[in-house]
Amino acid sequence: MRMQDRICNDKQKIEGLLSSAKTGFLGLTNNDVPYVVPLNFVWYEGSIYFHGASEGKKINYIKNNPVATFVISEFQGTMVSPIPANTDTAYLSIMLFGDIEIVNNLSEATNAMQALLDKYVAGYYNMPLSSQHVARHQSSLGSKTCIFKLTPTETTAKENIKIEEQLYFQGRNIDH
Amino acid sequence: MRMQDRICNDKQKIEGLLSSAKTGFLGLTNNDVPYVVPLNFVWYEGSIYFHGASEGKKINYIKNNPVATFVISEFQGTMVSPIPANTDTAYLSIMLFGDIEIVNNLSEATNAMQALLDKYVAGYYNMPLSSQHVARHQSSLGSKTCIFKLTPTETTAKENIKIEEQLYFQGRNIDH
Repeated sequence: MRMQDRICNDKQKIEGLLSSAKTGFLGLTNNDVPYVVPLNFVWYEGSIYFHGASEGKKINYIKNNPVATFVISEFQGTMVSPIPANTDTAYLSIMLFGDIEIVNNLSEATNAMQALLDKYVAGYYNMPLSSQHVARHQSSLGSKTCIFKLTPTETTAKENIKIEEQLYFQGRNIDH
Repeated sequence: MRMQDRICNDKQKIEGLLSSAKTGFLGLTNNDVPYVVPLNFVWYEGSIYFHGASEGKKINYIKNNPVATFVISEFQGTMVSPIPANTDTAYLSIMLFGDIEIVNNLSEATNAMQALLDKYVAGYYNMPLSSQHVARHQSSLGSKTCIFKLTPTETTAKENIKIEEQLYFQGRNIDH
């Protein structure tokens, strides 16, 4: 499997995958030991927002070291070649680099939660989320939660474009 | 989105996802800066094997610090609740912890390459891979490659089991 570095500069493709991918992978590190967390997230107004417990391994890592890498990848299929070693993968992947912040502003947290609901359960709740609901949820006993934000200082994307006639396995899953 | 920690001890489920997931996410770190690489891989004889260039960012990270986390996650759907903050995700995710090694043994490298082909393009090549082909590929000018191996010293899995009657969006993509 060659995974050659092929830069993608197509902003529309990048925005499209940032908006549609259902799972992102957050890379963190403490004392040079890496940790990767699969997450639901929303790409909203130029930042990645996600939700998490206000106690536990993830927030401990973030509090000790906010430097993060956030990755999403779309597997599009496997391409074959008469030379086995040239078997190749069609994909689009995006890497965002930046520091994680905890969102303390209730209005921003409410907007981010609404954007998450609009992404994952569009149309299910017929009332917009109230700040009170978000505030209560963030402070409820035993299940205190936080909204986190990553505003990328650098974004890179790579792709290996699908060649239809070489496709052996046709996959297209933007849900992870 | 609650992402509560729910431990999965079902070895059959874990083996199943390790064998079928098409993309894994490798977390590395150098000088406490994290890096996450989406990868094709194969789970073969108790180790994760993957393939990569023998020059570049990934191998530099690994050579400087072989400590790694390897994560796969299966998104299975979004579940709704009358309380918006209880919107939840059905998933199974697996984390493997260990050090990355470069596979120098040609026979082991050939077996790993064969296992990769058997996984991604099962049935396409009608001849087994020869060691000579692998050796040539590993040393060919301009595209030198390596086989890497992660034998986990620790494996954890979490799941949030799907509740059919609460499912809003039914997804099931084991391909990433």
